[in-house]
Order: sequence, then C-alpha cells, then structure tokens
Amino acid sequence: VDITHEIPPQDIETAAFTLLAACSAFPAGTIHVGVVDPGVGSERRPILMKLGEQFFVGPDNGIFSHLLEKYERAGETAQLFHLTNEKYFRDPVSATFHGRDVFAPIAAALSLGVKPAVLGTKTTDCIRLAPLKLTSEADGADGKLTARVIHIDRFGNCVTNLTPNELNDETIAAGVTLRVNGKSVKSFRKYFAEETGSKHKLFTIWGSAGFLEIAATNDSAAKLLRARRGDVVIVEL
Amino acid sequence: VDITHEIPPQDIETAAFTLLAACSAFPAGTIHVGVVDPGVGSERRPILMKLGEQFFVGPDNGIFSHLLEKYERAGETAQLFHLTNEKYFRDPVSATFHGRDVFAPIAAALSLGVKPAVLGTKTTDCIRLAPLKLTSEADGADGKLTARVIHIDRFGNCVTNLTPNELNDETIAAGVTLRVNGKSVKSFRKYFAEETGSKHKLFTIWGSAGFLEIAATNDSAAKLLRARRGDVVIVEL
Amino acid sequence: VDITHEIPPQDIETAAFTLLAACSAFPAGTIHVGVVDPGVGSERRPILMKLGEQFFVGPDNGIFSHLLEKYERAGETAQLFHLTNEKYFRDPVSATFHGRDVFAPIAAALSLGVKPAVLGTKTTDCIRLAPLKLTSEADGADGKLTARVIHIDRFGNCVTNLTPNELNDETIAAGVTLRVNGKSVKSFRKYFAEETGSKHKLFTIWGSAGFLEIAATNDSAAKLLRARRGDVVIVEL
Repeated sequence: VDITHEIPPQDIETAAFTLLAACSAFPAGTIHVGVVDPGVGSERRPILMKLGEQFFVGPDNGIFSHLLEKYERAGETAQLFHLTNEKYFRDPVSATFHGRDVFAPIAAALSLGVKPAVLGTKTTDCIRLAPLKLTSEADGADGKLTARVIHIDRFGNCVTNLTPNELNDETIAAGVTLRVNGKSVKSFRKYFAEETGSKHKLFTIWGSAGFLEIAATNDSAAKLLRARRGDVVIVEL
Repeated sequence: VDITHEIPPQDIETAAFTLLAACSAFPAGTIHVGVVDPGVGSERRPILMKLGEQFFVGPDNGIFSHLLEKYERAGETAQLFHLTNEKYFRDPVSATFHGRDVFAPIAAALSLGVKPAVLGTKTTDCIRLAPLKLTSEADGADGKLTARVIHIDRFGNCVTNLTPNELNDETIAAGVTLRVNGKSVKSFRKYFAEETGSKHKLFTIWGSAGFLEIAATNDSAAKLLRARRGDVVIVEL
Repeated sequence: VDITHEIPPQDIETAAFTLLAACSAFPAGTIHVGVVDPGVGSERRPILMKLGEQFFVGPDNGIFSHLLEKYERAGETAQLFHLTNEKYFRDPVSATFHGRDVFAPIAAALSLGVKPAVLGTKTTDCIRLAPLKLTSEADGADGKLTARVIHIDRFGNCVTNLTPNELNDETIAAGVTLRVNGKSVKSFRKYFAEETGSKHKLFTIWGSAGFLEIAATNDSAAKLLRARRGDVVIVEL
C-alpha cells in the first residue's frame, strides 16, 4: 500500500502528520516504511519503532514522533530499536538512498518473521518534533488557549492541534473565536456543506484526523489567512 | 489498484469521466470505490450501484452518472442501493471522511460476500450529471451538431461527447469542421504522430475512451483554444 | 507495483532514466511495462526485451535504451522481440492507447507463461537514445572530460553521466572541478548533510543510481545552474 509519494522534499513534519492520520486505519502487524530523510548517509540512526501492534521503519529524525507521542499518551507500549545489523541491509549501502538500501530490506526481513531484537539494539531515546499537545492550557482565568497550525492539506484546510480534550461540544456550542494572523474565525460547522446562515467564508470543523481544522467555503483557508504551518492560533472561549 | 489520486478537489465531473474511461478494463466482479465528496457529512446518500457485473461504491452526487448512462443505453442491468446498514460502517463515522468510514468498509464487506441488499435498501433514483449523449442531433437539415467538451486531460487534449454514433468514418472522410470558441479545427488524424500535410497544429482524433478529441501537435489544445470543460463544440458536416 | 505515473508527457528520456535507476531493485522474472509513447498508432514497433532475467514491454522508441546499453556493456544477454502476434492484443486495438491495448495484455500473457517467441519475432535492432557512456574520454593530455546532464530529479539535483569508471575516489580526493553553463562546482560531499567547511552551495555527490550528481544545500542545483537535460558538463581533473 502506497500511502503517498507526494510529501514535499525534506518535509519531515508533513510526513509525521500524514503517518499519524493514516496509521489508525491499518491492522495489527502492519509494517510501515516512512522515508523523508535529509540526513541520509550522516550519523543519524536508522530506527525501528514498535507502537502497539504496528511497526515503523525509517530514519531517526522525528518522522514517527507524532505517532510515538500518541501511543505514549494512550499508555500503549512503545519499543525502539537502533537498526545496527548490517546483515539485513542491501550490500552495498549507498550514502544517498537508505529507503532502498536499509529501510525496505529491514521491512522485508520483519515481514519474514525476523525479530526486532535481531535487527538492532534496544534504545530509549529518539529525535522528537515539537509535541502536538498544547503546552499551556489556560482555562477560565483568561479564557484563552494557545494552539498552532500543525498541517495544511491540499485543499488549504489548516489543521490545528486542538482536540476534543481542549474543546468539547458544549464549549463550541457556547461560541469560540479562533484568531490567526490577525483574522477571526467564529463559525463552526458539523460538515463542510452545512448551511449555517453565516456570511463568513471561514469556519472551523472537526477533521478526520481528530483535530479542529479551519476551512473555507469553496476556497483555501490557508490562502485567506496567509497561514503557514507553525502559525499561532489563539482560542477565545 | 489505485486508478488515480489526482482528481482536482471537488471535481465530480473529472471523477465521473475517469471512472467511465477506466472501468471497461476491469473484470466482472470488480468493486470500485469512487470518492470525490464535497457533500460529505450532509444528507447526501451513500450509494452502491451494480452495473452489469461490476460494483460501484461512493457518494450519490453524480460520480457514477456517466457509467450509469452507458449501462442503461446498452440495455444492461443497473441496480441501485441506498447504503443504510450502519453495522457495516466504521464506528464512529466522522462527518468529513466517508471514504475511510463508510465506502471502504462497505467495499470490504462486499468483497467478503455480503449481499448488496443486506448493505442497504433498493432505490431507483440518483443524482445525475448532464447526460453525455448529444441532446439535439441536427442532421442534413442545417448540417450541424451541437456537442461539448466533457473532459480535458493532462496533455491538454479536449475530449468531446461525439462518438462514432454521430460521426462515422465516411462523414469524417468527407470533411468535418469543429468550431470551439471562435476557432476552427478541420484536420483529422488516425494517430497522434500521423503526417497529414496540414500546417494546422490542431486536429481531431478518436480517443481511447471512444470519444472524438481535439489535440495539438506538441502542444495543449486546451491552451490554444482557451477551452474549458462544458464549452460548446459546433460540428459542421 | 507502480514505479511512477509522473513522467512528463512525451518525455522518453526521463522514462528511460527512471527505468534504469529502478530496475536493479527488482528480482529475476520481473515483467516491466514502460509506456511513454508519442508514436502510438504509427509504424513504430511494439517490442519486448529480455535483459538478463527481466522482461521489458513497450514501444520501440528508446525507452529501454539505457537499460539495453547497461546490460550489453556488462556482457549480459539481451534478446529483442518485435511483438507481432495480435492474438495476444486487446480486440480492438485503439490507435491512441497501446498501454491498455497491446503492452498490458502482452505482459499478462508473459506472466501466464507464454514464451516471448510466441508473442513476436526475434529482432536485433531497436531505436536507441544517445549512449550514456562518455564518447570522448580525454585523459592526462588536457586533463578534461566532457560529460552531460542526463536527468534532473524533483529535488533539482542534476544527474551527470559520470560514473566511478571515469572518476575514482583518488581523483575526486585530489580535487575536481565541474563547469556547467559558465559556473564551477568544486566541492564534493559523501552525503547530503555533510559539513565540508565550504561556503559554496553547490556540490557533487554520488547519486543512488551510480552517477555523479550536482546538488545544492537546501536548494535546486538545476535552478542555480540554469541547467537543462543535455547540458554539457566539463570536468577538469
């Protein structure tokens, strides 16, 4: 299964979000190979993660970081292995294409029943991207949350790191304003084509990956907001 | 088999043409999932069509409309089902991604032998796009046909809704002129690289989906004609 | 396995390079279908090549030319067949889509055990692109090699036709300058993220297909060099 070959060059964050969004639809035992790898050939480690019952093979650069965070917060087991057993690599290994020379052969070995502990040595640390979880969750005190844009999809929808943990149905029904780059988004829709009576083009909606997204009627919210990944999203409750 | 993931956002017409062009190459029993779904989460129905011996699962928004027209005109059986049996959906169903939550699980159930009548209730109506068949087929009277551009492919070829039913080999050999946006196309080629002696860049050719196309030598016919889908094509016999 | 559907229209050279780069990762017995086919429907022949233990089916327009050159130079067997047995084609055969009507059905027949000699007649000649091998390999006399850019990838890396046969590690360590479009590239890196102390953005690196590439730190070398495929690369030893 080819999830995508359209991650922009070097864009580890987009790869990490895409893996996070896609993996829950795969069954136990799935072996994922994820390769966005600007550090290929350097000292960056090749790693294998066993998260719950799924396997993830790729460079240790944060590409599996959002998934690891999700499994850890859910209290599920996470095992990390530094892939060191060159016997399972292609021979020779190039300095520019470990997808072909390291990660795919390791995934093939896994699929044939070779144990992770044979493919490498256990490790506990790995490179992590900035966590998705909101760092400061202000509450009634000043009635504000500080979130951020974590992904922009090909429709221009801006995915935030707000989840139902921060914003429940009641809060949203009571009225919430999001501020991004000086613009406000006040409408909320249950689905894209919902008629809300609002004249405003921009609205928020729960996206399929479980995060609140900012979208626009027949338009790109990212363009209207001049939003880029990482932009701050202030939530006024 | 992934036919394509490159349908432009919300472009139901392109999806409908792509399915029409591709499906005849698949065997009996094939289950197609087609999802271009701007109405996801609204009241638009999830449907299943059995056309001849193939199955089509997706939103009721016209995406299978060209196929339905084709099977109906060929006198083949067409059965429609409104997918209502939520037992076969993912749980929970999101309001923004029924490809994952409704259509793929239904296709999986079909592939395991669950009968259409178990997955939903029979229905007779569905949303239809404008028919491909020429609405007014003028003949000798004024010697003109009114057709239209139904698809523009990635090479810039403009696919019309003219078929050998409207234009047989004899008619074409006698000379036919197509007028689009004030420009005329008079050359006809049997294949793209044919040398016709004509200096004109634009020519017509029978495309692989069975429709007459307007193409250009090493160029985009759509660009040369400033053509867009839906543009009128006047045929002078 | 879908290697790619993203070859630019009519771009036989890019297809030929892509096949060359990909095929060594496939096992004996693999049947490849390669279709970039501007001459479809004309007198250009449909061909089958057996190169080593792999099969290649497609138009005789040079698309398998680089592969053939590689196998011939390695002294491996190469058998060519002109596909003439229409019994194995789709019926009817369109004049515009032989990928569907000729090449895929032939590949299917091959996969079912039909022998190449049944599918067509043996032939010895075929259309060839300009060879990848350097035509004049100047040596110590004037200390220059004349190479060229044979491919530009989606990162903007410029792949040359220089291989370790022309440039060994010692030569590179001693210092080599590449001149392209009036600009010089003097740095060499073992891997993309290597810190060389050089302030220059452009550098050379051994690419994963076995050729020397010109790349740029966080940039497109093709853009910086205004390079296009076919551009001359002068190597000063």
